[in-house]
Amino acid sequence: MTAETPPASGLRLPIGGTSLQSRIAEAAIDLFYSRGAAATTVRDITAACGLTPGALYNHFSSKEELLFVLIRDIHQLADEGLAAAIAAAGPRPAARLAAAVRFMVAQAGGLRKHSLVANRDFTSLPADMRDEVTDIRRRMRSRFAGILLDGSEAGDFVLPGGQDRLTASLTANAIGMLCANISEWTRVDYPVALDELQERYVLMALRLAGATGSGAEPG
Amino acid sequence: MTAETPPASGLRLPIGGTSLQSRIAEAAIDLFYSRGAAATTVRDITAACGLTPGALYNHFSSKEELLFVLIRDIHQLADEGLAAAIAAAGPRPAARLAAAVRFMVAQAGGLRKHSLVANRDFTSLPADMRDEVTDIRRRMRSRFAGILLDGSEAGDFVLPGGQDRLTASLTANAIGMLCANISEWTRVDYPVALDELQERYVLMALRLAGATGSGAEPG
Repeated sequence: MTAETPPASGLRLPIGGTSLQSRIAEAAIDLFYSRGAAATTVRDITAACGLTPGALYNHFSSKEELLFVLIRDIHQLADEGLAAAIAAAGPRPAARLAAAVRFMVAQAGGLRKHSLVANRDFTSLPADMRDEVTDIRRRMRSRFAGILLDGSEAGDFVLPGGQDRLTASLTANAIGMLCANISEWTRVDYPVALDELQERYVLMALRLAGATGSGAEPG
Repeated sequence: MTAETPPASGLRLPIGGTSLQSRIAEAAIDLFYSRGAAATTVRDITAACGLTPGALYNHFSSKEELLFVLIRDIHQLADEGLAAAIAAAGPRPAARLAAAVRFMVAQAGGLRKHSLVANRDFTSLPADMRDEVTDIRRRMRSRFAGILLDGSEAGDFVLPGGQDRLTASLTANAIGMLCANISEWTRVDYPVALDELQERYVLMALRLAGATGSGAEPG
């Protein structure tokens, strides 16, 4: 891999990092994904990218800090992508919800390793690091909840339980979890291409939102 | 705790185990839950129930075997409970689906520690142990898929994507994941009592299934 070759994932981590840091990041994600962060050593990570063990500390103060930076930046990039996808979808709540779900399914299904490590391992971070990640996760869920509330107020959605913030939050959480869970399917081989999966999940999300006039109603 | 006191969870693990094994099991689940299995030592577990470190090996060959037995038995008891809840609900698919969701939400929300350890840590087991747990998970998902297919064929459900096994399986997976995810809410305090949560999730599941004539339609 030359200094200019982008990582196979198409995602350059950490944000603003050097090419060497990006190589370390990709090797670490592969290992965190397959063995878990607790069972991965600094030596494993440096060996996987042909470095001496001490070389990691020129870039990250510890394995824990590396894990944190990766999880934070994966979340940060996902949130930026989610915001852009929603903004590009125009004003209609159903179109915005569909765009948000398509983006999240593409993330979870197309960047499985990154998504799984980010979703699974953020809970094992120390409190202050975890809080920073939790803030980004809340922001992402708020984007969904905002679309659901807007749609509810416009009469485009009939949320399951009422036209209130709690219901919007619970429904947003449900839709977000459905999408994120796709990254956990690694051992089960579903015969569905990513673009078909996106449309199936859009349909499920519209049903959860109680979208009227969108073809999502069963009756 | 006397030999006859049931564990606080109300669930006696492992299946068929002695009172002392049950004490070890409860202590282990508390530790696996709060620290993760990888960061928990045999010494931590035995210290938590006032035993010498070596005492664990009279009952389990290793920490890994203990983790496996607990995860397998939590799944086994959940599957038996799920089957009983469905059987007690009578023949109507919508009633059977509702009963299944109520049971799963009660498990995930009422037995959070057990559910979280079982759902989170089964992927870290060695292949042969994991396969045994995966079989039980498949069986549970099949119970949901069976209800969905029955309801689809009876015209009670209009599944999101078609009246076929793949759609039933994907929808069953979505409903199961929604329920299981509740065990991961430990750090977020939703102001919803368990029985209200059950009914909200029943409504979401009926919407996903496309239940007709059940009041779940948005329109």
